[in-house]
Amino acid sequence: MKTQFKEISGSIVAPTGFLASGVFCDIKKLGTGKGSNKGEKRDLALIVSETPATVAGMFTTNQVCAAPVKVCAERVKKGTAQVVVVNSGNANACTGKQGMADARDMVSFTEQALGFSAGRALVGSTGRIGVIMPMDNVRAGIIEAVLELGYTTAHADHAVVAIMTSDTKPKQIALEFKLGGRTVRIGGICKGAGMIQPGMSGTGARPAALPGGHPQGLHATMLGFITTDAAVERKVLQVALQEAVAHSFNRITVDGDMSTNDTVLVLANGLAGNKPVGRASSRADLHIFQAALNHVCLELAKKIVRDGEGVHRVVTVRVSGAKTVQDADAAARAVANSALVKTSWHGGDPNWGRIIDAIGYSAATVVEEKIDIGYSAPSSKKILWSLKRGQPTKATFKQLCAAVAPKEFELHIQLNLGKSSAVMYAADLTEEYVDFNKGDVTDASSLGG
Amino acid sequence: MKTQFKEISGSIVAPTGFLASGVFCDIKKLGTGKGSNKGEKRDLALIVSETPATVAGMFTTNQVCAAPVKVCAERVKKGTAQVVVVNSGNANACTGKQGMADARDMVSFTEQALGFSAGRALVGSTGRIGVIMPMDNVRAGIIEAVLELGYTTAHADHAVVAIMTSDTKPKQIALEFKLGGRTVRIGGICKGAGMIQPGMSGTGARPAALPGGHPQGLHATMLGFITTDAAVERKVLQVALQEAVAHSFNRITVDGDMSTNDTVLVLANGLAGNKPVGRASSRADLHIFQAALNHVCLELAKKIVRDGEGVHRVVTVRVSGAKTVQDADAAARAVANSALVKTSWHGGDPNWGRIIDAIGYSAATVVEEKIDIGYSAPSSKKILWSLKRGQPTKATFKQLCAAVAPKEFELHIQLNLGKSSAVMYAADLTEEYVDFNKGDVTDASSLGG
Repeated sequence: MKTQFKEISGSIVAPTGFLASGVFCDIKKLGTGKGSNKGEKRDLALIVSETPATVAGMFTTNQVCAAPVKVCAERVKKGTAQVVVVNSGNANACTGKQGMADARDMVSFTEQALGFSAGRALVGSTGRIGVIMPMDNVRAGIIEAVLELGYTTAHADHAVVAIMTSDTKPKQIALEFKLGGRTVRIGGICKGAGMIQPGMSGTGARPAALPGGHPQGLHATMLGFITTDAAVERKVLQVALQEAVAHSFNRITVDGDMSTNDTVLVLANGLAGNKPVGRASSRADLHIFQAALNHVCLELAKKIVRDGEGVHRVVTVRVSGAKTVQDADAAARAVANSALVKTSWHGGDPNWGRIIDAIGYSAATVVEEKIDIGYSAPSSKKILWSLKRGQPTKATFKQLCAAVAPKEFELHIQLNLGKSSAVMYAADLTEEYVDFNKGDVTDASSLGG
Repeated sequence: MKTQFKEISGSIVAPTGFLASGVFCDIKKLGTGKGSNKGEKRDLALIVSETPATVAGMFTTNQVCAAPVKVCAERVKKGTAQVVVVNSGNANACTGKQGMADARDMVSFTEQALGFSAGRALVGSTGRIGVIMPMDNVRAGIIEAVLELGYTTAHADHAVVAIMTSDTKPKQIALEFKLGGRTVRIGGICKGAGMIQPGMSGTGARPAALPGGHPQGLHATMLGFITTDAAVERKVLQVALQEAVAHSFNRITVDGDMSTNDTVLVLANGLAGNKPVGRASSRADLHIFQAALNHVCLELAKKIVRDGEGVHRVVTVRVSGAKTVQDADAAARAVANSALVKTSWHGGDPNWGRIIDAIGYSAATVVEEKIDIGYSAPSSKKILWSLKRGQPTKATFKQLCAAVAPKEFELHIQLNLGKSSAVMYAADLTEEYVDFNKGDVTDASSLGG
C-alpha cells in the first residue's frame, strides 16, 4: 500500500494547537562564531502544544552524551510533554554537574515561564562542546521566546532558524492526510550539517547491536522536532518513531562522526480528534500514520545531507543481496564513509576500484567475483552497471562519468549472496569541508566545539 | 631490555648477499598518471638473494584481494624464496582470471630470467585497480631489471623508487647489530601514501577478530620488503614478522581505507653465519632479532604516515587505561580516523570536544567522567593535560595551541578503566588530500585506481 501525502506550509505549527517562536539571546556569540546563520540571528526556540501531548524520543548512543540529552531522555519516558526548549550555539556537552544543573534549569524555567506544571518541558541543545551554558542569556531568551510564541508560518520559520548551527538552509516540512476519517497534520523541523552519522536509540543506551551494526559513529549534532495533531498511543508513537528514525536519520552520514547531542522528538497532541492510533487501531490507520512519520523523517534527513558541510554531491548508497541486514549495513557504511570513495564523488570520478575496496574491507562477508556496482538517477530503476560479477562492463568511461556527474545520484551495490539490503544517504568530501572544520585557532571559545 | 641499533646505509642491499635493481618499463604510463615519482621514472624492482632465503609474509585481510597477493601468500607458505619482483603503476587487482595468470607469469618469467628453479619468486604490485597488466612491458622490465642487478646503495635506491606511487619520498632503512657473536644486518624499503590503514594477517585470511578489532579498513596500498643476512628458522621468522607488523604497519592510518594489495615480506638468507635464530635459540638472540625487526618495521611504517597524501601533521594517538586491548584499539582508531579530529589537527586546533566525541562513539566501553586527554612532544613523558576526568584543566588555550602546533606530536587518552593500551600513528586531513584524490576524470585509465 503506497500512501500519498499532501505537502502543506506551516512546518511545526501546521498541526492544530502548536505554537512556536525563535529568538536571539546571544548564546551563539555571533561576533566570534563560525556559524553561517546568515542575517538571522536567533539561537533559542520554543515549540509549544496548547494541551499536553503524547511524546516519543530517540537519542544519541554516544557514550559521551550531553546533559540535555540525559534530561530529555529521562523526561520522555513519562510519555507526556507540552513544550520543547532548544538552543543553538552551545551543546551543553562535557559540562559536568553544572551542565546537568543548567539543563534542568532550562526545563523548569521554561515550565514556570509558561505556567505549565513540572515535567512538561523537554530540552535540546547544539553547538560548542565543553562550554558552560550562559544561563542569564538563556533565561532572558526563554522569557522573550514565550512572549513571541505564535501560530503562523513566520513563527515556525523563526524556530527553525534558531536551532541552526553550521546549516546554511532551514529544514522543515508539513503534511496533511486523512486518518480515521479526520484530517490530521504532521510537521517537522531539523538541523545538522557536520558531525553527522546518527545512531540513535529510544533510551540513548546502546543496544547489544544497533540496527545495522553501526561500526562507527557520527558528528555535528542533528536535532529533529516533529509535531502532529493526530492522537497516538504512547507506546505506538515510540515504536513508530523508532521505525521512522531507523530508515531516515540513522541512515545518513556526512562525515561519519556521531554527535553527543543527536535527538529526535515527536509530540502528538490529539487535537485532530481522530480515534487514537494504537494497538487496537485498524491496521490501515497504523500504516498511514507510520507512512506519514516515515515521510517526514526521511525528507528531513535528506535535507541534512544535502546541506552537509561543504557538500557538493549527495549519493544514495543501496546495498542489496547481502547475507544479513548487518552485512548490508556494514558494506553501505564502509562505502559511505570511505575518504577515497567520497573524494572520488567530489571529483565526478566513477572509480569502482575504491568502492569495491571499501566493500572488501567492511565487516560484511563478500565475494569479489559476485559483486555488481552500478549507478542510476535518484529513484530510477534504470541502472548503468560499471561492474558485473567483479569485472568491468562495457559501459564507457564517458557514460559512467555522466552517471556520477549530477548533484544527486544512486550507487547500487549487489552482493549476490543473499536477500538482505540497506541504504545510506551519503555525501562527498570536499576541500570546503576540510577548510570549514580545520578550526579557528584565534578563538579560544571554540576549544570544545 | 632495551636494544640499541646502529643505522647504516645500503637499505635492502646492506645485508650480505642481497642485490637489487629498479627500472622503467612504462607500466605507470607516466604521460597520464598522477604519480609524483618526480624525475625518477622507474616502475619495476627486483630484490634478489644470492642463496635461497627463509621467507615470511603478511598480507591484506581485504576480502577483495589482488592477484599478486594471492600468488605471493600461497608461495610464502613454502618457506623459501630467492627473489621478489615488484611493480608500481598497476595493482593487478579486480582483474579476474587474467590477473591471476599474469601474476603467475610474473613470478615464473622472473625465475626463468634469473635461472632459478620454480617457486623461488615472490611478487607484489601497487597502482591502479581493475586494469589488466601490460605484460609485454612487464617482461621487458624484468629482463632489464635482471641485467641491472647490483649490490650498491644506488641499486637499492633504484628499487625503492620503482615501488613508489603517490609517495613523494623513498622510504628505506638498514641496521647492523650483533647476533650470536656475528655481525648481522637487516634492511627494508616500503611504499605507501594513501589507501592506508593496513590490517594484515599471515595468510591474508581474516582472523575471527584481528589483533585490536580493526573495525574498518584502509586504502593506498602499502608494500614493505625486508632483507636480512641473519639465519632465522621459518616459523620463528613468521611469528617475529607478525609481532613486528602488529605494532607498526597495522597501527598506521592515513585515510582509514584498507588496500587490496598490502604486503610485507621478509627474506632471511643466513649468510651472516649466525647459529639460526629458532625455538632452540637463547632468549637473548630471539629478543635481539625481534627488536631489530620491530625497529625496521616501525620506522618504515612511520615514514608512510609522514609522507601520507596531503599530510601536514603526524599524530601518535596513545590510548591507555582501557578495559581490554580491543577497547583501546577501537578508541584509538575512532580518534585516528575521525574526519573532525583530523581536520582540527590540520588547523592546529586543540579541540578536545571532537576527540572525546569520537572516543564516545567508538566500540570501546568508556565513561565520560573518567577520560583524560593530553598532549606531549614525540616520546616525551611531559604531558600537558587539556581534560582530566572529563573536565577541562587549567591549561590555557595558548598552551594547548602550542602543544598541537608542531609537525609531530603525541595525543594521550587515558580512559582510567583498566590496564590495556593501544597506539595509532595517524595523520591530519587536508585540502591537499581531497584535491589529490578527487580524481582526474579526463583520464579513463584511472577508472579503477
